[in-house]
Amino acid sequence: MNLLLGKPVADKINEDLKPVIEDLKKKGVTPTLAVVRVGAREDDLAYERGLKKKFDSMECGVVVMELPEDVSQEELDDTVANLDKDPDIHGILMFRPLPKTLTDENIVKSISAVKDSDCMGTANMANLFAGNGEGYAPCTAQAVIEILKFYGIDLKGKKVTVVGRSLVIGKPVALMLIKENATVTVCHTRTADLKAECKAADIIVAAAGKAKMITKDFVREGQTVIDVGMNVDEEGNLCGDVNFDEVSELTEAITPVPRGVGSVTTSVLLKNVVTGAVKSVG
Amino acid sequence: MNLLLGKPVADKINEDLKPVIEDLKKKGVTPTLAVVRVGAREDDLAYERGLKKKFDSMECGVVVMELPEDVSQEELDDTVANLDKDPDIHGILMFRPLPKTLTDENIVKSISAVKDSDCMGTANMANLFAGNGEGYAPCTAQAVIEILKFYGIDLKGKKVTVVGRSLVIGKPVALMLIKENATVTVCHTRTADLKAECKAADIIVAAAGKAKMITKDFVREGQTVIDVGMNVDEEGNLCGDVNFDEVSELTEAITPVPRGVGSVTTSVLLKNVVTGAVKSVG
Repeated sequence: MNLLLGKPVADKINEDLKPVIEDLKKKGVTPTLAVVRVGAREDDLAYERGLKKKFDSMECGVVVMELPEDVSQEELDDTVANLDKDPDIHGILMFRPLPKTLTDENIVKSISAVKDSDCMGTANMANLFAGNGEGYAPCTAQAVIEILKFYGIDLKGKKVTVVGRSLVIGKPVALMLIKENATVTVCHTRTADLKAECKAADIIVAAAGKAKMITKDFVREGQTVIDVGMNVDEEGNLCGDVNFDEVSELTEAITPVPRGVGSVTTSVLLKNVVTGAVKSVG
Repeated sequence: MNLLLGKPVADKINEDLKPVIEDLKKKGVTPTLAVVRVGAREDDLAYERGLKKKFDSMECGVVVMELPEDVSQEELDDTVANLDKDPDIHGILMFRPLPKTLTDENIVKSISAVKDSDCMGTANMANLFAGNGEGYAPCTAQAVIEILKFYGIDLKGKKVTVVGRSLVIGKPVALMLIKENATVTVCHTRTADLKAECKAADIIVAAAGKAKMITKDFVREGQTVIDVGMNVDEEGNLCGDVNFDEVSELTEAITPVPRGVGSVTTSVLLKNVVTGAVKSVG
């Protein structure tokens, strides 16, 4: 069984970015991400710490715009609109969901593709749908593709079953896999025989958001399993959508949780911000 | 074998629209489509004649903006931008592909969702991807869903194989079917075993653009086949992607070509223009 760790994938992305970042610095540009956070939810703060560490280590900037939970809609919209216009900001990440009193409607419609580093806006959703190679996909969905490519797992003509149809993983990863010439099946809670759909695949992408739901009954020998889940099990430990101990005994290759897909996400975010910076000088 | 004719589906859409159109007329509004045509390609003219006839019969308007093939990019962009602003226009259809000297780039990015009756623009592609129920899907893709619903073919938990991954049919119809709770597999020219993928499905949507490619070897008893193909065979006759004579002997239900999906498309277009008109008074 091959353990598909995220770290070597992230390291490779970082290495490839280093000369690009150096070149930008020579031109007086420091790739900089603006994080828009309303309130201070613990999981947002944890993700923020992780990305700050990554951006720091790569000598890129992070500006955090912390807004109180009772911020007005207008102020939130204006904050993002100003960042979108600010030439020193090359990417924007806004934590969602927002408090119930607020909507992301205006932001989603107006954010520029080039600064929308995690694909929350209309422009990048359309780019993803069109498959035109412009803009950015959601970072986690892109991380799945980066892992498959890094480990040389061929996608052309392969059968991939995606479990989950969310806007941030299931649907975007399906579109990206179709573009990579895979034959893609999208499954979800209403799928009649999920076990059969998973067993029939060469590659399974588990993005259902349900702890350890993919058990040994869903897999067979020779498969590759990419686990996008981020759940907490009964004992309070981080775990994926895949029952790793059972499934890893059968599969050809598998990503662990933690140390799998999640380890690649912030490097993809960094890559998108650097791309935004390159375009800003271009 | 049930023959899934398009006409009863179109008739039902038209019947449902009649009171809505009457109500709009009372308010002084005639639902009106603007057709933007560069040059005079024979297939565009044929489609235009068909939709004029349909809109006439429903007492709705069609305005044709015919532009010469050597029109400037600026004039084309301005033509569409002006229609987008014109309160008497409720939908816009532009024939594509454009001549090679022109691009639809600006139009795609700027056309309003509410007037983009055939989903050529960014806003409606994003709506389709998000599955938020706003905007319009491409008319032909929507026609597939209308046919399935009209004939009471349940989609929930059903396995649907879509053959083709185009921007106007394959990808949009896949997203719409996922939203309808079907388990959807998208196949294309790189799919390793297309016959097996088709045989495994409850419903096949053939949108490959290759005359009669779905033969009896691709199907089994009990299936529903929706043929979106519009091709011309060796004898010069209109035919679909499905070898109808062979396949119809086995399947439970099938759409013919002609008289199938194509017969529903202009009614879907009309529906989208009427929706645009309703929103304009709302």
